[in-house]
Amino acid sequence: MIRRDVITACGVAFSLGVAILAGIDRPGSASAAQADKDPLPSWNDGKTKQAILKFVADVTTEGGPKYVPPEERIATFDNDGTLWCEHPVVQIAFVRDRLKQLVEQKPELRDKPAVTAALTGDMAYFEKEGEQAIAELVYLTHAGMTVDEFHELVARFFQTARHPKYGVLLKEAVYQPMKELLAFLRAHGFKTYICSGGGIDFMRVISQEIYGIPPEQVIGSAGVLEFREQDGKAVLVKTPKLLAFNDKQGKPAGIELHIGRVPILAAGNVRSGGDIAMLQYCQGNTRPSLQLLVNHDDGEREFAYAEKNDASLNAAKARGWNVVNIKDDWKAIFSFQK
Amino acid sequence: MIRRDVITACGVAFSLGVAILAGIDRPGSASAAQADKDPLPSWNDGKTKQAILKFVADVTTEGGPKYVPPEERIATFDNDGTLWCEHPVVQIAFVRDRLKQLVEQKPELRDKPAVTAALTGDMAYFEKEGEQAIAELVYLTHAGMTVDEFHELVARFFQTARHPKYGVLLKEAVYQPMKELLAFLRAHGFKTYICSGGGIDFMRVISQEIYGIPPEQVIGSAGVLEFREQDGKAVLVKTPKLLAFNDKQGKPAGIELHIGRVPILAAGNVRSGGDIAMLQYCQGNTRPSLQLLVNHDDGEREFAYAEKNDASLNAAKARGWNVVNIKDDWKAIFSFQK
Repeated sequence: MIRRDVITACGVAFSLGVAILAGIDRPGSASAAQADKDPLPSWNDGKTKQAILKFVADVTTEGGPKYVPPEERIATFDNDGTLWCEHPVVQIAFVRDRLKQLVEQKPELRDKPAVTAALTGDMAYFEKEGEQAIAELVYLTHAGMTVDEFHELVARFFQTARHPKYGVLLKEAVYQPMKELLAFLRAHGFKTYICSGGGIDFMRVISQEIYGIPPEQVIGSAGVLEFREQDGKAVLVKTPKLLAFNDKQGKPAGIELHIGRVPILAAGNVRSGGDIAMLQYCQGNTRPSLQLLVNHDDGEREFAYAEKNDASLNAAKARGWNVVNIKDDWKAIFSFQK
Repeated sequence: MIRRDVITACGVAFSLGVAILAGIDRPGSASAAQADKDPLPSWNDGKTKQAILKFVADVTTEGGPKYVPPEERIATFDNDGTLWCEHPVVQIAFVRDRLKQLVEQKPELRDKPAVTAALTGDMAYFEKEGEQAIAELVYLTHAGMTVDEFHELVARFFQTARHPKYGVLLKEAVYQPMKELLAFLRAHGFKTYICSGGGIDFMRVISQEIYGIPPEQVIGSAGVLEFREQDGKAVLVKTPKLLAFNDKQGKPAGIELHIGRVPILAAGNVRSGGDIAMLQYCQGNTRPSLQLLVNHDDGEREFAYAEKNDASLNAAKARGWNVVNIKDDWKAIFSFQK
């Protein structure tokens, strides 16, 4: 006969086994210890935080009217201005850094007007010359090398590149509330993706380290890759030809190409209208869904900027998306400001 | 004081909790019960099966010289002729089925030579007319509709389409040894992908059901998608324009686009040389890697066919890839033949 206290003790041990594994490996469940803590400590209590908490509770309540099975809990996040600071745009900082190195090696590159314009920050030149001038820079800094060589260059850039305003490494200028949101979603069985206009292989170098997002969950603009045998080894060489521009209406197409499911949560930000289509697409899901639009209204702690035509905020208002006003909604913006 | 038998009993309960979760949810570990059983019962004992078992043991032995961390355990599988039977090519069967329906609705379609050629199986016509004729069929059967509408058509096709030789549903003509291999790899922390020349959204309709591979782990040929608002809802419309042809040298490029990592295991088959580049690319991994090439040499139980120039088998010989000879290596080919 097994005594009741033995059964109870075993029950505790069993639950402990379950809880340990749940905490470490199991998607879709949070351990008891986690449930007691505020999962979003850098978010101020308010409408937006409550909307997020309610949505996650709704879609994870088995048997509830809004339950969504784990495999369909897809969340897509824009990167620049949504997950990390976009002043300066990180990939443009990389291009300038890379051009400086190239000009040191080949001073004659200075004769190219696009190079000079980029190094002196002459944005008017690019507005005038358009795509051709930008393509020239992309060719110089992003093409004509293998995927591995590019990875190396980007990894080295992130080791030392610093933010001009905060002095921290660029890779540290990541929004703490969004890091918490990503972790909170994953603890509830969500698969979190980046869906950005930025270069897919640029972001992949750093996405696991700073967001916990593996390379296969990064969607971005991509160039055509050329297969070659080099010293007896099969390699992929980056060409300057664009395969997919993953911004605006390209975002839903990128999501379908890479995931093949419609997200139930999508987050973007106000600046260029680049995320409107993604948020619309997410809202078209037949499942319950949540849209977040980050509004940069805190010039003191971060940067304040708006869109010329307010298209993103107007869309949010008309369609009932949740606007994340940084000033009010985020208690802390960066971990180094805490 | 806690008695020793209580601790022991608790230990059992704890292990049970762990084992249950391990079996259901945990990638990277097999339960004790599973370890005793042959994980590949439809494979004959021999060089190929031993190579697979040894490779998986090597890369999962922590502290061993060939250990590969779980996040890098990527396996990519061709589909036609590697995972399912390619006589007939399933997607071509779908095209013909769809054309028959379209002709019933619009008899004037018969006036198009490409339609007549497809319906009568006049392959010489397509060899003569080339890409333009094939593009016409793709346009008629794969474009001009939303992604959701296409999904519906394909799902309906798989409900009734049958294999002409075996009489089973086409979706049942799946290689049992490969299903076991996929499950075995996943039980050891591998992420299994399809990487096929077939249409990405065609395979995604059925990949979870027949292989346990979710849509986001399917890589294939893809068309350009157009974002539109239709009745106030955001939808993606399939256009006839090709974005990526995921065959031959396009496979490594597709793997980099979708995964951003080099696989440590890749499997393809002899027919057109379509998998040579993928296997080369896999072998170029700096981690230990394994390549499998299925050779269809069993005309009795399946179909016997070879390549005109034997390029795939020659590459396998020169580079040390494992050839899976169906006749010798597979005890059972299909579950319905057992």
